[in-house]
Amino acid sequence: MTSQFSKKSEAWSARFNEPVSDLVKRYTASVFFDKRLALFDIQGSLAHAEMLVAQNIINARDHADIQRGMQQILSEIESGQFVWLLDLEDVHLNIEKRLTELVGDAGKRLHTGRSRNDQVATDIRLYVRSSIDTIVGLLGDFRSALLDLAEQHAATIMPGFTHMQVAQPITFGHHVLAYVEMFARDTERMLDCRKRVNRLPLGAAALAGTTFPIDRLCVAKTLGFDDVCHNSLDAVSDRDFAIEFCAAAALIMTHVSRMSEELVIWMSPRVGFIDIADRFCTGSSIMPQKKNPDVPELARGKTGRVNGHLIALLTLMKGQPLAYNKDNQEDKEPLFDTVDTIVDTLRIFADMAGGITVKPEAMRAAALQGYATATDLADYLVKKGLPFRDAHEAVALAVRTCVDQGCDLSDMRLEELQKFSSLVQEDVFAVLTLEGSVAARNHVGGTAPEQVKLAIARARQQLAAI
Amino acid sequence: MTSQFSKKSEAWSARFNEPVSDLVKRYTASVFFDKRLALFDIQGSLAHAEMLVAQNIINARDHADIQRGMQQILSEIESGQFVWLLDLEDVHLNIEKRLTELVGDAGKRLHTGRSRNDQVATDIRLYVRSSIDTIVGLLGDFRSALLDLAEQHAATIMPGFTHMQVAQPITFGHHVLAYVEMFARDTERMLDCRKRVNRLPLGAAALAGTTFPIDRLCVAKTLGFDDVCHNSLDAVSDRDFAIEFCAAAALIMTHVSRMSEELVIWMSPRVGFIDIADRFCTGSSIMPQKKNPDVPELARGKTGRVNGHLIALLTLMKGQPLAYNKDNQEDKEPLFDTVDTIVDTLRIFADMAGGITVKPEAMRAAALQGYATATDLADYLVKKGLPFRDAHEAVALAVRTCVDQGCDLSDMRLEELQKFSSLVQEDVFAVLTLEGSVAARNHVGGTAPEQVKLAIARARQQLAAI
Amino acid sequence: MTSQFSKKSEAWSARFNEPVSDLVKRYTASVFFDKRLALFDIQGSLAHAEMLVAQNIINARDHADIQRGMQQILSEIESGQFVWLLDLEDVHLNIEKRLTELVGDAGKRLHTGRSRNDQVATDIRLYVRSSIDTIVGLLGDFRSALLDLAEQHAATIMPGFTHMQVAQPITFGHHVLAYVEMFARDTERMLDCRKRVNRLPLGAAALAGTTFPIDRLCVAKTLGFDDVCHNSLDAVSDRDFAIEFCAAAALIMTHVSRMSEELVIWMSPRVGFIDIADRFCTGSSIMPQKKNPDVPELARGKTGRVNGHLIALLTLMKGQPLAYNKDNQEDKEPLFDTVDTIVDTLRIFADMAGGITVKPEAMRAAALQGYATATDLADYLVKKGLPFRDAHEAVALAVRTCVDQGCDLSDMRLEELQKFSSLVQEDVFAVLTLEGSVAARNHVGGTAPEQVKLAIARARQQLAAI
Amino acid sequence: MTSQFSKKSEAWSARFNEPVSDLVKRYTASVFFDKRLALFDIQGSLAHAEMLVAQNIINARDHADIQRGMQQILSEIESGQFVWLLDLEDVHLNIEKRLTELVGDAGKRLHTGRSRNDQVATDIRLYVRSSIDTIVGLLGDFRSALLDLAEQHAATIMPGFTHMQVAQPITFGHHVLAYVEMFARDTERMLDCRKRVNRLPLGAAALAGTTFPIDRLCVAKTLGFDDVCHNSLDAVSDRDFAIEFCAAAALIMTHVSRMSEELVIWMSPRVGFIDIADRFCTGSSIMPQKKNPDVPELARGKTGRVNGHLIALLTLMKGQPLAYNKDNQEDKEPLFDTVDTIVDTLRIFADMAGGITVKPEAMRAAALQGYATATDLADYLVKKGLPFRDAHEAVALAVRTCVDQGCDLSDMRLEELQKFSSLVQEDVFAVLTLEGSVAARNHVGGTAPEQVKLAIARARQQLAAI
Repeated sequence: MTSQFSKKSEAWSARFNEPVSDLVKRYTASVFFDKRLALFDIQGSLAHAEMLVAQNIINARDHADIQRGMQQILSEIESGQFVWLLDLEDVHLNIEKRLTELVGDAGKRLHTGRSRNDQVATDIRLYVRSSIDTIVGLLGDFRSALLDLAEQHAATIMPGFTHMQVAQPITFGHHVLAYVEMFARDTERMLDCRKRVNRLPLGAAALAGTTFPIDRLCVAKTLGFDDVCHNSLDAVSDRDFAIEFCAAAALIMTHVSRMSEELVIWMSPRVGFIDIADRFCTGSSIMPQKKNPDVPELARGKTGRVNGHLIALLTLMKGQPLAYNKDNQEDKEPLFDTVDTIVDTLRIFADMAGGITVKPEAMRAAALQGYATATDLADYLVKKGLPFRDAHEAVALAVRTCVDQGCDLSDMRLEELQKFSSLVQEDVFAVLTLEGSVAARNHVGGTAPEQVKLAIARARQQLAAI
Repeated sequence: MTSQFSKKSEAWSARFNEPVSDLVKRYTASVFFDKRLALFDIQGSLAHAEMLVAQNIINARDHADIQRGMQQILSEIESGQFVWLLDLEDVHLNIEKRLTELVGDAGKRLHTGRSRNDQVATDIRLYVRSSIDTIVGLLGDFRSALLDLAEQHAATIMPGFTHMQVAQPITFGHHVLAYVEMFARDTERMLDCRKRVNRLPLGAAALAGTTFPIDRLCVAKTLGFDDVCHNSLDAVSDRDFAIEFCAAAALIMTHVSRMSEELVIWMSPRVGFIDIADRFCTGSSIMPQKKNPDVPELARGKTGRVNGHLIALLTLMKGQPLAYNKDNQEDKEPLFDTVDTIVDTLRIFADMAGGITVKPEAMRAAALQGYATATDLADYLVKKGLPFRDAHEAVALAVRTCVDQGCDLSDMRLEELQKFSSLVQEDVFAVLTLEGSVAARNHVGGTAPEQVKLAIARARQQLAAI
Repeated sequence: MTSQFSKKSEAWSARFNEPVSDLVKRYTASVFFDKRLALFDIQGSLAHAEMLVAQNIINARDHADIQRGMQQILSEIESGQFVWLLDLEDVHLNIEKRLTELVGDAGKRLHTGRSRNDQVATDIRLYVRSSIDTIVGLLGDFRSALLDLAEQHAATIMPGFTHMQVAQPITFGHHVLAYVEMFARDTERMLDCRKRVNRLPLGAAALAGTTFPIDRLCVAKTLGFDDVCHNSLDAVSDRDFAIEFCAAAALIMTHVSRMSEELVIWMSPRVGFIDIADRFCTGSSIMPQKKNPDVPELARGKTGRVNGHLIALLTLMKGQPLAYNKDNQEDKEPLFDTVDTIVDTLRIFADMAGGITVKPEAMRAAALQGYATATDLADYLVKKGLPFRDAHEAVALAVRTCVDQGCDLSDMRLEELQKFSSLVQEDVFAVLTLEGSVAARNHVGGTAPEQVKLAIARARQQLAAI
Repeated sequence: MTSQFSKKSEAWSARFNEPVSDLVKRYTASVFFDKRLALFDIQGSLAHAEMLVAQNIINARDHADIQRGMQQILSEIESGQFVWLLDLEDVHLNIEKRLTELVGDAGKRLHTGRSRNDQVATDIRLYVRSSIDTIVGLLGDFRSALLDLAEQHAATIMPGFTHMQVAQPITFGHHVLAYVEMFARDTERMLDCRKRVNRLPLGAAALAGTTFPIDRLCVAKTLGFDDVCHNSLDAVSDRDFAIEFCAAAALIMTHVSRMSEELVIWMSPRVGFIDIADRFCTGSSIMPQKKNPDVPELARGKTGRVNGHLIALLTLMKGQPLAYNKDNQEDKEPLFDTVDTIVDTLRIFADMAGGITVKPEAMRAAALQGYATATDLADYLVKKGLPFRDAHEAVALAVRTCVDQGCDLSDMRLEELQKFSSLVQEDVFAVLTLEGSVAARNHVGGTAPEQVKLAIARARQQLAAI
């Protein structure tokens, strides 16, 4: 009897009357993208084989053959010698076929008690788990780089904006810390997702489990999974973990896009708050003077890609009946590209954080424009006894006068200010300085340099703890 | 000096030269949807006031006035007497204005040390937290109803499908448990999200903190928050929690859509596996015989709505510079509708689970069609010593012969089966029964009735633990 | 025999054993949002009745009764007296029930030869057609307002940006015309979509057509449809037109979001290119000096909402088997909200265009910063014989020297410039002026004021032609 | 003076102090995906050069050099000898650099009067235009194949479903025609989109036009464009056409997904309406009996991918300020993958349509189940004078009796039927047959075989006309 694989160029199996058409082969094959899972596939197969021998489903010699064959396949893959065949559809059949070539019947026994459905689910989980670990590491590197930047500028004053209008003075370090918070939450989400990734589907076989006396907990332990998937139908059809991962990734890119937007605006000449090192920029094919912040712009654009992948996966799973359907093969490319995008982006941003030059004088000049300390004046009046709403109105009137006269609040003389409220005294001018304003916001989460330093220390501690 | 609010129909504040146009008022006002946050807004204001008096920022009499005023406002809202005004833009100004009408200057003092930016962020977090608690409860009810259904049918045999083709026999109870697993993961995700929701933004004020000596940890404690947001810019501009919530909701709806798809197919007359009670169905305006599974169909359709809201929020936040921008007002409607959709859908599905009538004879007839025990035959040959791949091929050939002859594997005589492998013996026929097949998949996660009962017990324990 | 409707509170029809549960009623009812279709529903019913009488399916007296009844219903709806009942599910049954109350058996005859499936499809198409006509009108108003703004500033110089870096001088009028082009394409798309909206589904009945001798072309003509839907299954299940409409709407909002982004940046004090009239802005609850560009910010945020609705509809239709399924009821709310968002946004933007004050001096100052005429210098060298790539490099070197010296290209003396290329002559300085640069781009689509004026004239002609 | 390119491994241009980092190079380079545009890039460059010489901007010898060089580059690319360099970023610089190597200064003159911004916009439009033409052709092939299938089964009776419940009898040919309508609309949309694709951006240069006396209309004519883009800023920043294309593609995939869903259900053994030829199916690695409809399942899954790409592009463009930003580089991969997905899917579906075997007996059996002719009975009563609503109710009651008795309407004796309405006569039984029911729906768009044949003829005429 010939083996199932040797006839793949003829018909899928003995049950079929004609071979798969070439067009269909190309349309349905996944090997050219799922070969990326090869090492995880082998890792899973070795753990499966180890369990099979422990349960006396295969014998020790078969096990040794499988181990030896897989070792060789690994080295063939690593050296680029492994020949991937479209005819063999996917990474699983390609490896299994090669194994059988190398070690004969032992190779044909490896698939005992499993199916490609639980095999691929296991491979992807191993892949996502490993990707999460990489990403959590990179998020740490990035936060660390941002903390260094924040520390240098814990007291560098810039205008805080709401609605892109000058709101209140803040420090640049405080602003940078906002991103540290975001990327810390991203880390939390990745780790929460990891819990649900780290459950073993193997043993679900096609959808119902297997008639062989397998030991799933043993395989889980070998592969470092925390638990097994507790329902076989769910095990082969669940792609929640991929969607949850992409949703967490979409939030990372959302944060990256916000930071990128700010970097691009800050580097625009009219704003001029920062410069980005030349090695992160490129020029124009026509305009010789241009130096463009390519990296943040491109990263901002890549947000679309990751949002798109999230929608791709949600659309994919919508309304799919149980258990496994071929639709699910479409889970891989969006997932792979999401991982690549996040990994590349975080790596380059962690690097670029060190290439940002801050221009404190431009920041200060901007903070002096736009009545940044108006709230401080209102607070001052409240402390003198005026209800907040009345103080707000008094200051609004003062600002309007300033707008008309083209001056700042601190440019007014005491008597002028007193027209808006008789509560104003000489001590008001200390309140109207940028330094005074910033230092006064001295509570947990506030922009006072003292608080910024405490927040940096706290964030460093958190980073060290992971 | 007139108060800020009394002139809202004239100009926004003393800083403005003309009133907001009517078109703009309607376009930018949020009161007609954010009034849903009223109780949370009052809850937040009361906690804020309690801290203000503890910190001597307002006095005890102001505090008492605020408490009294808010009590009255609460009862006005609950009785429907409260008049919501478009001119006052949002829930916050509407309540504050009424408070000031009721209690005078104390009302004008309430806003000391906060801004609408941190106020609305607090309100939404209280709202989402409360919604999560409701949803977690409903997910529990639904799983409980599904477990009852699974228990009744722990041994009811049906065909397991992959690719909508008959794959292997399973039990209906086992199939139902796949959904129990999904909704259990949804619960986990909601609870993980809750951790990030449950941090207090109040105290961030507009974006930089406040000059008043506030005590944020005290407010957090009063409101039951686990922690405070540790950066003021992030606190007012973070909507991660809303996006994470919607992503978790999208997965709930994905699961609902898969179950709905199956219910609709199962109730289609050619399949006929189940019936859904009349009270969950409607008829046709033209075809008098129709009884349509409206509820699962509509729920399947509502998946689109929730996926859409997720994209709405991700698009909203993409590329937004810090800190607060008016764009963020658009976070509410998608969030509210997501909550409503999830709550209504889970409630009705928990109810409908008890209205499903299973038709075991139709399920059994279907399981007998499609060579459901072919894998069992292959496993049988493996256990007799044939490598799995050779066994697979031998059975494929046997199936093809059956297809040609229009019979089932179990219809073949022993001699016929032996043509495909000489290893086949008389004991093969036990393996080819549905009951034998199902009972043989007897390991964690497998479809054997024994395992199904264990899985039910385990799930009940988990449910009780939350 | 009692009528079908009078027993709706008991059971759906005589085929049902129990009434629909209250929870299900609320979950599945559409009347509270689809009553918006009432006038279109009546319009469609009247055209249907007119055909029924022409084909002798009902008699003239029935027809007169129906017309009279509908007239009364119309006035009840317009006066707000019409009582919408949840029990009657949707707009169609509510109106039909009232008609039957008013005119007896004639009302019961109206539904002859149609079904709610083709009825609702007709209603929505009438609604979308009418919405497109409104939107096309508003797009015209908006372009007209933009053209007025562009004309005022056909020669007002500002920096053109790429990558938010100063690229080349342009005129503000030219910049505004870019948006006129976008909204002109939006108009084209809406009109293309209208062609596919404007086909009549009525006559498809439930899904297969009807046994009555209907005349669909006659109904199409009465209702102003260009054609009928040529396949009954497709007619009741097609929602392409709604999706195509939402996709066109998403592009409108994309354009609005880009313009909003620019308005917000331009109004930011460091840039200061424009001011937006107070009536389109609001202030801050805490910061008395703030004047925020609420309208463009909110519009930018609303992009998310429309993108989300598009995804909602695409997700809804994915994988739906023919013909009508209850899922389709979910088409309405995303569609309605998309229409409302587009209509409100275009109306307010057309109005706001007239409220933009341009600050030419700030624009000019910005254009003088960033070597905006470097390309002109390179082009100058090319015209003197240097290959473009060499000219680009020479100018890049000159710019770098300027950056180091903190001066502009036009600040260099002739001898200094000649260091970078001996081809530079005295005539170079004319080339380095902003006016010279702008005027030199004098071809179709270029920024020369002469071209801007021609483009405005062309756009006005196009507008008049529609 | 060294050329700009020879130093790319050092610094971007003379304006830069350090080379781009390797990480940034890889992150920002597009050459490994945009090289797909090479032939369009060359086509565009040749048309540009032809115009430059006609306008005396370059001389005839330069033109000849450019033509010769491009010819060689073309053959190098086609033979696979062309060496694509990451250091040269994109397809444009790679080709221009090679051209300069081959023909010297003429190569450096090619970029006169253009920029990469308008160059890439031109390339993509040429690519999308060509893709649309391919897709329109494939849509035609597919419809043609569907029309052949419909013709064979113009009178083959099957149950028409709504809500997956048997509704009314239809013919399979009629059902197939529903898809012909959908794919005809897709063709319309593609052709409408083509109008907006087919406008020339070249001549916009970086964003403002150029100082050279170019002739854009001449280039448009050479390249077969209908018009030029009339605003230079819009020309380089417009990606509407890519989004509109992806939206049209998403609708194609939506239709494919609906058809796939039906094919999968129809091939499921309990339904068994069709079989799909073995060459479009594959088997299972574990279950030897399986034959899975891989192609429709995978196509259904690919809907997600295309919806995702649409969202990627919409997200990309949201809130982008004018004119060109690096974000836009992200337009290509989603677009390319969308084209590949649509082209492959349509090609394989056109092929697969001929591999569908219909099982008329299974369809008929299903049509006899579910009271498919109940509407006919109601219509019968209406024709005898009963108002439709009363007829509906009478039949509903009859159906309920049948359900209770487990029989069909046509199984009832005349006297039994008369219990529900005294209007029933002996002639009722003709109305209750499947053939009678189908034939009676004999109007435009109805399911009567006569109408199906007319519809096929009409569709064939439309196809021939394009």
